[in-house]
Amino acid sequence: MEHIENDEQYSGLTVNSGVEQPPIVNPYLRRRRKPLPTVGEMVEGILKGDVTMLSRAVTLVESLSNDHQVLAQEVIEKCLPYSGNSRRIGITGVPGAGKSTSIDTFGLHVLKDGGKLAVLAIDPSSERTKGSILGDKTRMEKLSVHPAAFIRPSPSAGSLGGVARKTRETIVLCEAAGYNNIFVETVGVGQSETAVHSMVDFFLLIQLAGTGDELQGIKRGIMEMADGIVINKADGDNIDRARLAQAQFRSALHLFPPTLSGWMPEVLCYSGYYETGIAEVWEMIDRYFDFVKENGHFEAKRQQQARYWMYETINEKLRNHFYNDADVAALLEDREKRVLANQQSSFTAARDVLDFYFKKL
Amino acid sequence: MEHIENDEQYSGLTVNSGVEQPPIVNPYLRRRRKPLPTVGEMVEGILKGDVTMLSRAVTLVESLSNDHQVLAQEVIEKCLPYSGNSRRIGITGVPGAGKSTSIDTFGLHVLKDGGKLAVLAIDPSSERTKGSILGDKTRMEKLSVHPAAFIRPSPSAGSLGGVARKTRETIVLCEAAGYNNIFVETVGVGQSETAVHSMVDFFLLIQLAGTGDELQGIKRGIMEMADGIVINKADGDNIDRARLAQAQFRSALHLFPPTLSGWMPEVLCYSGYYETGIAEVWEMIDRYFDFVKENGHFEAKRQQQARYWMYETINEKLRNHFYNDADVAALLEDREKRVLANQQSSFTAARDVLDFYFKKL
Repeated sequence: MEHIENDEQYSGLTVNSGVEQPPIVNPYLRRRRKPLPTVGEMVEGILKGDVTMLSRAVTLVESLSNDHQVLAQEVIEKCLPYSGNSRRIGITGVPGAGKSTSIDTFGLHVLKDGGKLAVLAIDPSSERTKGSILGDKTRMEKLSVHPAAFIRPSPSAGSLGGVARKTRETIVLCEAAGYNNIFVETVGVGQSETAVHSMVDFFLLIQLAGTGDELQGIKRGIMEMADGIVINKADGDNIDRARLAQAQFRSALHLFPPTLSGWMPEVLCYSGYYETGIAEVWEMIDRYFDFVKENGHFEAKRQQQARYWMYETINEKLRNHFYNDADVAALLEDREKRVLANQQSSFTAARDVLDFYFKKL
Repeated sequence: MEHIENDEQYSGLTVNSGVEQPPIVNPYLRRRRKPLPTVGEMVEGILKGDVTMLSRAVTLVESLSNDHQVLAQEVIEKCLPYSGNSRRIGITGVPGAGKSTSIDTFGLHVLKDGGKLAVLAIDPSSERTKGSILGDKTRMEKLSVHPAAFIRPSPSAGSLGGVARKTRETIVLCEAAGYNNIFVETVGVGQSETAVHSMVDFFLLIQLAGTGDELQGIKRGIMEMADGIVINKADGDNIDRARLAQAQFRSALHLFPPTLSGWMPEVLCYSGYYETGIAEVWEMIDRYFDFVKENGHFEAKRQQQARYWMYETINEKLRNHFYNDADVAALLEDREKRVLANQQSSFTAARDVLDFYFKKL
């Protein structure tokens, strides 16, 4: 395997909580041309749980370079047989719901019994907002210095589909490296929840007791996806309001059709900051895993997800192949103008561009 | 223009309320090989408001044959300059909400002032359920014998995207034929509402006063799309329950983000069967059109929809070109099996099939 010298296109910012916390030096920020390890070296390192190798492989997954992508796929393929042995948990909630503090607290709770935890993120807006979630690892004070935690911000480049795919691939690498708990964080305001939902076993929605309109700010579809709803900041003066919100969410959940798994989503209160109610949340998640492993839904869902990602990847690449062609893009722009001026139907405009594309191929 | 003799693939069942109601004889059911009119003849007939020509053109739009599709696109293109002058109204509601009776009553109300009405439908399940909506024109007793009404069942073949595209194209033909009111009916239980929403100016949701759980059965996302919610069967003993439901929907609507148009969706009661409250519903719709034409949203939305359909058509055809290839399909099946058996990652499986496809092209 040849070493590839060019790492100009590396896009990931490695926020990696290694053991013993030396000051973190990100080689790519300094643009030092450090030779890439071979595929074999990376796989070997990952399987040993070497955090540096894992980080470099994830950076490869996130790279926009075609050469890197080829290598990344080889690494993933070789890691695949060692993957799958984790609990994949999606965590969402609107900004302000206290996701970071909660993940910090939940993560520490999970790590009490040993094992390892990887915290990943999907935030297609992170390029724009300079990494609004997980961009700043200091937001997870306890996990960021925990030797068994690996925190990785959202891949920043590309479409939601692309960003999500990279996170999905990173899960494989983390599992091969022995991370038996995977959290995937996302912001509960957009389309990214569907993507997260398609890669996790359990989907946790963090809510706040609000000012009466409990559903406000959260998209309806997200509640339908949740396997558990947990109400944060159930502490001090806020306890009564949290209990009220809990009752409201419970009755709202009755309006939804039953879940595919047969699992009835639960609604619990907790406090991420005061660390109360945490064990109860985790007991719910334990019950869920027992339940779906027992009734076969766990395995069935993972298979569906694998199939989903195959088709999703195909559709995304078919689109990219078309839309990333400069000549196609130019013609498309012209036809879009005509359509907007009502000079041409949407359908013949589409046909023109498609004809051009297929002739060019 | 050559006549095409082969109409084997004609898929539409023409349910066409012509003037004077002779017994309807569908030529394609009898498989009589009647020569197709030329594009010029069809366009001329459509612009004159000839219902038979319109029906034949719609059947062409719905045909699966490539030759027919080429002709259909020519007809649409020539009709395009004469299209756009209608109110496009989407009407949805769960089965049992009384959609047929309501459309019958609403339609008659609209036609009181003259003009013409086309009633179309999108029901991707119609093949399976043998045309659950609009399949039986007798369900609209009054409209089906009205000389100014054109009723057309849902295209039955293909994916939701394909079915919806055909309905979108049929709107152009109907408008060119002078139909200044277009209703697009759909069943309020699935994804087809998004498709309808992308082709209408106003989206009307028909609801029933229920047993307390007013939101039950209707997908949350559909309420978010509605420009108006109307509660049917507000008659007799049911009036109080309907008023209660009205109040509940009004307060539920406050939970939603404001609409793009600035229009605040209204909630009204009516009775489709007893024909009460109909004028009020239509006054609301009049107010909506005045409002969005005044603030420019009407035109902006139509432009967005035209752009949407251009991209939607491109994406659908890119996918079809790939998935309809027999060799691709065979390889895909093999790779899907491997993915499900965890022998290969979703991503390399996708890559294998894509590589094969692009090499073959």
